[in-house]
Amino acid sequence: MTDKKDLFVYNTLTGQKELFTPVHQDRVGMYVCGPTVYGEAHLGHARSAITFDIVYRVLKYLGYNVRYVRNFTDVGHLLNDSDDGDDKVEKKAQAENKEPQEVAQYYEMMYLKATDALNCLRPNIMPIASGHIMEQIDVVKILMDKGLAYESEGSVYFDVDKYNREVKPYGILSHRTLEDTMENSRELSGQKEKKNPFDFALWKKAPKEHIMKWPSPWSLGFPGWHLECTAMGRKYLGAEFDIHGGGMDLVFPHHDCEIAQSIGAYGDMPAKYWLHNNMITIEGKKMGKSYNNFITLSEMFSGQHQLLKQAYNPMTIRFFMLMAHYRSTLDFSNDALIAAEKGLARLTEAKAKLKTLKADAQSSSFDAKKIIADALTAVCDDFNTPVMIAHLFELTKHINAVSDGKETITQQDKQYLEENLAAIFDGILGLKEEKSGDDSKVIEGLMDLIMDMRSTARSNKDYATSDKIRDALKPLGIEIKDGKEGASWRIL
Amino acid sequence: MTDKKDLFVYNTLTGQKELFTPVHQDRVGMYVCGPTVYGEAHLGHARSAITFDIVYRVLKYLGYNVRYVRNFTDVGHLLNDSDDGDDKVEKKAQAENKEPQEVAQYYEMMYLKATDALNCLRPNIMPIASGHIMEQIDVVKILMDKGLAYESEGSVYFDVDKYNREVKPYGILSHRTLEDTMENSRELSGQKEKKNPFDFALWKKAPKEHIMKWPSPWSLGFPGWHLECTAMGRKYLGAEFDIHGGGMDLVFPHHDCEIAQSIGAYGDMPAKYWLHNNMITIEGKKMGKSYNNFITLSEMFSGQHQLLKQAYNPMTIRFFMLMAHYRSTLDFSNDALIAAEKGLARLTEAKAKLKTLKADAQSSSFDAKKIIADALTAVCDDFNTPVMIAHLFELTKHINAVSDGKETITQQDKQYLEENLAAIFDGILGLKEEKSGDDSKVIEGLMDLIMDMRSTARSNKDYATSDKIRDALKPLGIEIKDGKEGASWRIL
Repeated sequence: MTDKKDLFVYNTLTGQKELFTPVHQDRVGMYVCGPTVYGEAHLGHARSAITFDIVYRVLKYLGYNVRYVRNFTDVGHLLNDSDDGDDKVEKKAQAENKEPQEVAQYYEMMYLKATDALNCLRPNIMPIASGHIMEQIDVVKILMDKGLAYESEGSVYFDVDKYNREVKPYGILSHRTLEDTMENSRELSGQKEKKNPFDFALWKKAPKEHIMKWPSPWSLGFPGWHLECTAMGRKYLGAEFDIHGGGMDLVFPHHDCEIAQSIGAYGDMPAKYWLHNNMITIEGKKMGKSYNNFITLSEMFSGQHQLLKQAYNPMTIRFFMLMAHYRSTLDFSNDALIAAEKGLARLTEAKAKLKTLKADAQSSSFDAKKIIADALTAVCDDFNTPVMIAHLFELTKHINAVSDGKETITQQDKQYLEENLAAIFDGILGLKEEKSGDDSKVIEGLMDLIMDMRSTARSNKDYATSDKIRDALKPLGIEIKDGKEGASWRIL
Repeated sequence: MTDKKDLFVYNTLTGQKELFTPVHQDRVGMYVCGPTVYGEAHLGHARSAITFDIVYRVLKYLGYNVRYVRNFTDVGHLLNDSDDGDDKVEKKAQAENKEPQEVAQYYEMMYLKATDALNCLRPNIMPIASGHIMEQIDVVKILMDKGLAYESEGSVYFDVDKYNREVKPYGILSHRTLEDTMENSRELSGQKEKKNPFDFALWKKAPKEHIMKWPSPWSLGFPGWHLECTAMGRKYLGAEFDIHGGGMDLVFPHHDCEIAQSIGAYGDMPAKYWLHNNMITIEGKKMGKSYNNFITLSEMFSGQHQLLKQAYNPMTIRFFMLMAHYRSTLDFSNDALIAAEKGLARLTEAKAKLKTLKADAQSSSFDAKKIIADALTAVCDDFNTPVMIAHLFELTKHINAVSDGKETITQQDKQYLEENLAAIFDGILGLKEEKSGDDSKVIEGLMDLIMDMRSTARSNKDYATSDKIRDALKPLGIEIKDGKEGASWRIL
């Protein structure tokens, strides 16, 4: 770690970039809304995971002790994100004739596998909604006691109008008034239970055939979607924590409802800074199942999708995402990804080349410390990874110029750059050098060549070469056998 | 799958080997007691995981649709497995200044990483105890209603004596009488709350400083250790399922208490077949932290432990365990593991050699079908993997003899063996061929050799060879650059 820099973050709540000052000195709590686990992770999930991975890595780089909590939603998230309709996980389970927990676990594990591949550090706690029913019921009870929730036919709804009149304005995160919300509320079926169409469910009475249901003072049912984050954030991070993150599509209603629940129940604004990553578009269009342009991460990694010209390795995808600021929309295209692939290769190559540079100059021809300082300032300016990367490209030019004998570097600067480039490239940006393709195929290809050269040597009676080959392979654990049907090799 | 064979399993409950007949036709439910996640997985955990992985794989091989549930215990498991003392996970969390869920998740992930390395298939559902508090409270309520549990100072205990008199004998799994149990019950502190020292906790009132606690009708507290399996087994597998598994040390009191709770609350014996794997000893001694002979799996994989002569790869450990029957004790020693390593190499080699055999004979000199049938019969005889493996070694001899021209095989037998050996070796035994060492080191070593040969060719003006090398490397994604300081290569 170099000098501790000031960190500025854009807070959706205030609509401003603010200096980050932790609630509790040196300890930072961060809660991020994770996926609803009823389908495979796609590019949108990757963007959110990578965005908050950068936040986590920067905080750690700055020396904070961070507790990062990201939930898995396995219950209560209904189709169309509304208060009515099927539960997403349960519907998938019915379709596959499985227990909902089987479906949830399957997609949890897939999500972790994909985010691991993207080199996202795992959060410290990954709570699941169905494992915190009691905690959620507790919140509902408190809201009922305070008169901010009402029961209707076994379900419980949050009284938005009353909260808005008596406690706090509803919609402070999305900066909308209740009038805005009213205009945009559609009359949906099942809403006759509610006093107002914009009220939202805290607890839903389960239909008879529903599998995921628990006893409560109101009915055998399940919690509303917004409730889990209030309950689990408070449980694992306390009454007020530092950062609450998620995709921009969660600002309203999800996070505004969460804020209303928390303030209504406890009087506390749960988090100080609200950070939201922007969305992914695909060739200019919103990504979605209905648009037929929905690309999962395993499709990206394998190239098996009609929109993909090739497979993209996870580090290419990560780098592609980091080349845009997290609050900008990011348009997916093959051209942009291929450009990212090349850009990343250029950086990786320069990083390797740095180590081999002649560093016997009395002075460097460029200001190495300034480039690193500028890169760090950029990432501390609301996680501006594209600007950080631009500084790295600037550095690349100098490294290449030194290598070509056109510029100079001192031993001290070289060492400084090596250390800091590792900290930035591996530590903050989380880029790791990936082997392209399958190593075992490369080994087979190299062995084909070696066996071919050995066979040529033997037919030329050049036994020195053929022995040399055998001797070189032995310490690698590769054995050559000469048989009737020619020579073969195997890894011991 | 070949002919569906009869499966025989040793049932701890009856003390006999029995023909396996599923409760529900073709669907099998299996619940296995997983680890308490407060420390790293060790050899004992590996044995249990591998044992029930074999059970799972055999059931799948036989065509059953299996739902395999294995829990993680993160709450209520107290030191000394008793009703008093610190919670294992919470104590670890305090020592590390962490949230208990942080500790639990960390060790859950480590456990999965180790069991993945051992090629154990993941269970379909891996529920955690703290995520099922309501379900556990429900069981306690039912037992209270039936008069089989009593409250004492905020805790609730199971009334073993009353259950034993009025419902069923207590201890039917371990085949001990209540009198046996009484004689072996120690008077421990905190037991004055109990009517009898052998009563066990269903719910414990939490000390004030305790972190993991939930509201209940009796106190702010946490569930007793035995309760979770009753609640989660029933939730995910129904009132009666097929197989309940665990280590032999869980027979009493854990599983006997679970049976008493289930029968007491619901009248149902939760599982039909109770399977228990035996323990690991280390050079003849019981393994344990207090014996200073406690070897974790990551120590086994790395060789970093004073008792280890070398690192053992996960497949060696798996094979070592499969070479003993799961109901025998298994003594760890370096010699035994090194022997297992060699044995596995012999099998793997024969499996590869089989594919290259000349198979133009009119008849085979040995009965291939019988060897496979015997191997399958063995594994269906209470999962007798050592006998199955002995048959594979027998087959190895024939494969080597055919290769040496001393025996013969027909094309048909060769194909039959290839298919069945894959099904047994990969499918049932779950052995996968591992690459020895690090691929990237092998690639570097091969490239050193190739670059050396290219340099020799160039100094001999043998440009045909040097071009051939360049051309062969290109499709492997390897580029050669000739510079002032000699030639270098890189993977693109």
